[in-house]
Amino acid sequence: MTTASICTIGDEILIGQIINTNSAEISKALNRAGIRVRYHFSIGDQHEEIVSRLQMCLEQTDIVIVTGGLGPTRDDITKLALRELSGALSFVRSEEQYRIIERVMNARGIPMIESNREQASVPDNCEVIPNELGTAPCMVFRGLGPKGTSTLYSLPGVPFETKGLLPKVMDDIRTHFDLEYITHHTIVTFGIPESTLAKQIESWEDALPENIKLAYLPNPTIGVRLRLSHFGEGVPDFSPYISSLKEIIGDAIYGEGEDNLQTVIGRKLRSMGRTLAVAESCTGGRISELITQVPGCSDYYKGSVISYANEVKTNLLKVPIEIIKVHGAVSEETVIAMSTGLIRLLDTDYAIATTGVAGPGGGTPTTPVGTAWLAVATKDRVITKKVKFSADRMTNIERFASNALNLLRLEIEKDECVVCSVWSW
Amino acid sequence: MTTASICTIGDEILIGQIINTNSAEISKALNRAGIRVRYHFSIGDQHEEIVSRLQMCLEQTDIVIVTGGLGPTRDDITKLALRELSGALSFVRSEEQYRIIERVMNARGIPMIESNREQASVPDNCEVIPNELGTAPCMVFRGLGPKGTSTLYSLPGVPFETKGLLPKVMDDIRTHFDLEYITHHTIVTFGIPESTLAKQIESWEDALPENIKLAYLPNPTIGVRLRLSHFGEGVPDFSPYISSLKEIIGDAIYGEGEDNLQTVIGRKLRSMGRTLAVAESCTGGRISELITQVPGCSDYYKGSVISYANEVKTNLLKVPIEIIKVHGAVSEETVIAMSTGLIRLLDTDYAIATTGVAGPGGGTPTTPVGTAWLAVATKDRVITKKVKFSADRMTNIERFASNALNLLRLEIEKDECVVCSVWSW
Repeated sequence: MTTASICTIGDEILIGQIINTNSAEISKALNRAGIRVRYHFSIGDQHEEIVSRLQMCLEQTDIVIVTGGLGPTRDDITKLALRELSGALSFVRSEEQYRIIERVMNARGIPMIESNREQASVPDNCEVIPNELGTAPCMVFRGLGPKGTSTLYSLPGVPFETKGLLPKVMDDIRTHFDLEYITHHTIVTFGIPESTLAKQIESWEDALPENIKLAYLPNPTIGVRLRLSHFGEGVPDFSPYISSLKEIIGDAIYGEGEDNLQTVIGRKLRSMGRTLAVAESCTGGRISELITQVPGCSDYYKGSVISYANEVKTNLLKVPIEIIKVHGAVSEETVIAMSTGLIRLLDTDYAIATTGVAGPGGGTPTTPVGTAWLAVATKDRVITKKVKFSADRMTNIERFASNALNLLRLEIEKDECVVCSVWSW
Repeated sequence: MTTASICTIGDEILIGQIINTNSAEISKALNRAGIRVRYHFSIGDQHEEIVSRLQMCLEQTDIVIVTGGLGPTRDDITKLALRELSGALSFVRSEEQYRIIERVMNARGIPMIESNREQASVPDNCEVIPNELGTAPCMVFRGLGPKGTSTLYSLPGVPFETKGLLPKVMDDIRTHFDLEYITHHTIVTFGIPESTLAKQIESWEDALPENIKLAYLPNPTIGVRLRLSHFGEGVPDFSPYISSLKEIIGDAIYGEGEDNLQTVIGRKLRSMGRTLAVAESCTGGRISELITQVPGCSDYYKGSVISYANEVKTNLLKVPIEIIKVHGAVSEETVIAMSTGLIRLLDTDYAIATTGVAGPGGGTPTTPVGTAWLAVATKDRVITKKVKFSADRMTNIERFASNALNLLRLEIEKDECVVCSVWSW
């Protein structure tokens, strides 16, 4: 199996100022291509440290991916370390990257100075993958390491530039390394915790053929993604395994690939020509934020009322004050009144409502911190759900929000079925 | 200078499934204590790999902090590797951690099984720092490395457990290592980009005494934090430097330490007994979410209207339809009408309003993607600001939101001054 190591360079990582997201991004891409990542390494902007660590990486892995230390300032010294490491005699200018730098500086309205020009200059023994999103190019050094078979890719450390260059780097790796042929299919689920899911589908997993492997990828907002990986050439047919999985976990499955609750909800609402509004109390805007993360959501999302104070619930959403007095602000009765009040107020096809106690304060013996009532209303029905978590404020809010989105997703799917069955007549 | 290395263990990091936030958290704590972090290392759950990498860390640094691989499942093998590495003869039970495990399992309503009991068992040559938040304790191995002077701390990898144990680990480090005496003071600013700020305060920075160092810690939501670090014993008086800094950058300074815009706004509103509401279009709930991240925000925050569709702007916020027709939804006129409409609707002392184009679609030649109008209204005035960014949708939303919060912060400060001057009469 081809092996790789990832090395991030920059003092800002070692003082904890920034979180290293590049390594995870690169790991994901390598892992999908069937390359085993042996380790991640983060080091500071010191010449000897960079040279000796990269030497170690080149001794131990076939591919070394380096990010960071390519900026125009004095503390960016990765290029000099790479020159020493690769034994380059001099620097040459990459004309292609030079033209990009001119264009980038022009667009930013900043005059080109010497330090910008120097960013196009690279060791004479490397190949260049131009970076369209910034000024520092990706440099590729081949034939390194004790056996002369290792390749080093040096990328800028700005996350969106790293991300932008990654597909080109992966293409280069596929061209130059004899990788095992892998095809993935990811199934996205919500509502069953990872450990329970693992037990439920144990025999299904055991029955998978030898050349298909399963990976669990849990995420608090998205749910648990199940990734099937087929090893070997050809285009595999995953559909029989997906069908048999659906028989076990049913409507916990809601999407595939990069889907999440808000994109799937958006796609369904758009195709059905239906609209959505949100009434949030304990989630304080998080559900609305998730929905508006999706570009083009104005096609189906009208707006929200964040009714944090009870007077907003009564005045805007027309929740009868007696309901709050008798049943409390965190109750099934209140969440129902919020959702139906919102449907009337904003005249949408669907409405989500939430009311609960995110913590750390505000809990009572009957309604402890971590409790929330969720509702989904349409013009003719309301579905409610009570959830109970025991995490910190931010995690509780996140779980309330994703569970509310999932409740909506399930209701939309019911209506889709009705639409389908009408169509099939 | 005392040196440290951080080693995170777990296959989920190497396949890119989770982002390594622990290393940044630990780095920050070590850095604040004046310890130099030489590198971060992430490796998989393989015995030889763990032993050999930790041996390297112990050879090269005084302190090694290890997280991960302490769970109750088969793939968690860190403890066995530590036994080999430290030459422990057997395992003993930590009675203190055992009692915590019993309590944790009880609270979760899960029966205690053998694998849970085993989590309290540790190599006989380590000290235990009990973990109140989970089942695996922190283990401390002293006298390791070639000189017998290095210490290894092994912590569970669950981020909130790591974070919870970190203060105790830092106390232990301070007790056992002769650290340089460092005192920090952090000043929080918003509104001046890092590079501009660096130029503006260059001569102020140059005039700092030799034993005071400055660090820039930029964050898109919080702003740029300036950390002053005083090296040497005694309680330093930072106030003259802060005063002279205020003369240069004035009201860009808004807080200190761990302050952010939403906590500072909350503190001021609470002490003034004033209330807040938010009308969001392009920010889609992000401002409300930031405000409700602060526990106890119900003391001053009433609620929000997310008026994504124009009909919500006209129906709920009573923005005259002619204003939108004549000036457009993204205009100063609209944002003013949104903010004043909201003040009337929710009867608060302050209202924030936003309308803009987050992208990637929806831009026009006169209102390109990245443009937003922000407003802050009180009962008797409205302040507006136009901002223009050129990033992706999520980053644009984040910048619109933090700039709107900063606009509110500045207005609240004006009113505070009035209150102060009235009081001083």
